[in-house]
Amino acid sequence: MLKINENFIKLPQSYLFVDIARKVQQFAEAHPEKTIIKMGIGDVTKPLPKAVVEAMKKAADEMGQAETFRGYGPENGYAFLREAIAENDYRKHGIDIAPDEIFVSDGAKSDTGSIGDIFAVDNVVAVCDPVYPVYIDTNVMAGRGGEYNDQTGWSKIVYMPCTEETNFLPEIPKEPVDVIYLCFPNNPSGVGITREALQQWVDYANEHQAVILYDAAYEAFITEDLPHSIYEIEGAHTCAIEFRSFSKTAGFTGTRCAFTVIPKALQFQGVSLNALWNRRQSTKMNGVSYVVQRGAEAVYSPEGQKEIQENIAYYLNNAKIIREGLTAAGFTAYGGVNSPYVWLKTPDGMTSWEFFDLLLEKTGIVGTPGSGFGLNGEGFFRLTAFNTLENTKAAIQRITDYFRK
Amino acid sequence: MLKINENFIKLPQSYLFVDIARKVQQFAEAHPEKTIIKMGIGDVTKPLPKAVVEAMKKAADEMGQAETFRGYGPENGYAFLREAIAENDYRKHGIDIAPDEIFVSDGAKSDTGSIGDIFAVDNVVAVCDPVYPVYIDTNVMAGRGGEYNDQTGWSKIVYMPCTEETNFLPEIPKEPVDVIYLCFPNNPSGVGITREALQQWVDYANEHQAVILYDAAYEAFITEDLPHSIYEIEGAHTCAIEFRSFSKTAGFTGTRCAFTVIPKALQFQGVSLNALWNRRQSTKMNGVSYVVQRGAEAVYSPEGQKEIQENIAYYLNNAKIIREGLTAAGFTAYGGVNSPYVWLKTPDGMTSWEFFDLLLEKTGIVGTPGSGFGLNGEGFFRLTAFNTLENTKAAIQRITDYFRK
Repeated sequence: MLKINENFIKLPQSYLFVDIARKVQQFAEAHPEKTIIKMGIGDVTKPLPKAVVEAMKKAADEMGQAETFRGYGPENGYAFLREAIAENDYRKHGIDIAPDEIFVSDGAKSDTGSIGDIFAVDNVVAVCDPVYPVYIDTNVMAGRGGEYNDQTGWSKIVYMPCTEETNFLPEIPKEPVDVIYLCFPNNPSGVGITREALQQWVDYANEHQAVILYDAAYEAFITEDLPHSIYEIEGAHTCAIEFRSFSKTAGFTGTRCAFTVIPKALQFQGVSLNALWNRRQSTKMNGVSYVVQRGAEAVYSPEGQKEIQENIAYYLNNAKIIREGLTAAGFTAYGGVNSPYVWLKTPDGMTSWEFFDLLLEKTGIVGTPGSGFGLNGEGFFRLTAFNTLENTKAAIQRITDYFRK
Repeated sequence: MLKINENFIKLPQSYLFVDIARKVQQFAEAHPEKTIIKMGIGDVTKPLPKAVVEAMKKAADEMGQAETFRGYGPENGYAFLREAIAENDYRKHGIDIAPDEIFVSDGAKSDTGSIGDIFAVDNVVAVCDPVYPVYIDTNVMAGRGGEYNDQTGWSKIVYMPCTEETNFLPEIPKEPVDVIYLCFPNNPSGVGITREALQQWVDYANEHQAVILYDAAYEAFITEDLPHSIYEIEGAHTCAIEFRSFSKTAGFTGTRCAFTVIPKALQFQGVSLNALWNRRQSTKMNGVSYVVQRGAEAVYSPEGQKEIQENIAYYLNNAKIIREGLTAAGFTAYGGVNSPYVWLKTPDGMTSWEFFDLLLEKTGIVGTPGSGFGLNGEGFFRLTAFNTLENTKAAIQRITDYFRK
């Protein structure tokens, strides 16, 4: 008799963005005359760079001709893309990463979600709180969650509070942990981490033989002097895996391409994690579409770089407008300088969902309740900079009109 | 201290196609004057249909314009593709499958490799022998393998011998099993299964509350009156998951699109596997590239259908030439009628690898040793029909010249 994976049953049924979508739909039906401005989900809106579109069309043409057709590609990505990544994202910045330390995939969500396959079930996982829910949910599915409690979360997960008091940075856990998820610039809080602070994590991981899973999906939004890669930090090659994505960097949320870096120096009990992940990937997938990989390669062309920098500047300008507008309207707001996310404190001690309802009802603006990211997200609210400049300005005007004291 | 997943260490290091590639490279270096004809890996060679190329280029253009740009898509595929699949692959053939029972993905390898995520670790898995290695390796990684023995295989896996005596069909296991992998038309043997024979498996699974994982990646090659889908069989909706792919059907091995069907009626202990897989997919991935999904949709257009039928007929003609040529040369050959694979018995009691070496050395032809697919593959050899007509004819001529008595 088939037995299902009972860990799935333990997961709370509802999913943050599903709940939001339902409330928005209800509001839209009740108020068809109101224009809703969505600043909830972290999804880009600017089109793909022309260089990317042209590269994909050229690749599609190649696939239509016998002479240039390509069947199965290398599971971990074509050499042309792995070389371009190693050169442009690492070597050019003085970071020693080789093409065979790069694994091309269809998304950082896939990779952060599946990386646990190569770890034993009985590792202790540490996550920031608030946090991107995928890190927790995928570990719960694998049996690393324990039991769930509304007030304290999962019994086996170590939560690292990121609050106003800690400047939204996690502190080194007091109990032993084996797998540490870090995301900087952070989702949802939008804050970055300094080299000095990150060095402490690398030192801790090396000392305790823990692995850091470093999600750098938002590194392209860094404007201050902060590390873009964890491998800028001494010792990181022996303790860290880095996840990056073209999604936010180059507008690939619907095109799907990302990569994971696992240095060959990263070994535990004499076993190379690079070799384990290679085995996992070559057994469980067949690589990313050739057409998409050519599109990703074009991101590194001069034209591609120019266009993505313009797009990122556009989103960062939106973030600035949000952060400064909210502050002027009397809110306390964080993030938005090295990130497309602004993390604001709800006024008058409202809960995150109370503020969600109020904001939607009074201004027609959709954001994301901080409590959806964890217990320490309660009392906070995330707004994203991915809407148009016009909508972003209109949203801040509406907020100002309603809230300014 | 991080503990790795020890199950990975149990997996034998070498991988079938890696070994083959190494031997072929050595031969090529030693005999630069000889032309090698590759009939080993099951990879297509005909270019993508024009309709698919045009659809992908149009979609790439859409992604380059703000008005038509698409960000995150639905994790399980766009409605346009799920509808097209439900209509063309199922309803049109009188099979009741709804769009929300279809999960679009980047490959059947990904789906057959990851489906085990939703099952408990302590299920007993049954596989055909010989078999596509991914079914076994992914279960070993998940802890369902037990210990490996060169002579008997994995201690916890139930092997169902598919031999000349059984017409290469598995027999119902005598011990209880929970998860049954079936692939028809079969890889590697190329044989199909009748409705009557498949009905016995469906009845068994329903009676014992087992799940059948039905890999129908080669259904487009069926020429006789055999089931294209397991859902043609009464009772399959309550016991079977079906995997299909555009890879072999439409030349998508480098373009990457496939789908998995999980009927809502498929429930165990009151839990819907459709709901579990939906949760798994929406937590661990972000869907397939929009551009690729538009390409897959175009497979169902009249022009797309015409082109893929021509390509499949071309490959099937190659298969016929291989099967008939081998038979005329004195070999015993199976498959190749409803499949791009021909499964031949090695002559004079040679082992599969002995025959591999002889064939490469004497004729320059590369095939796949049957022993690479399992203990009962020993003494057999797989040739694929995916090369060009010219190369296929040349290969059979070389074999005939060398082997005909």
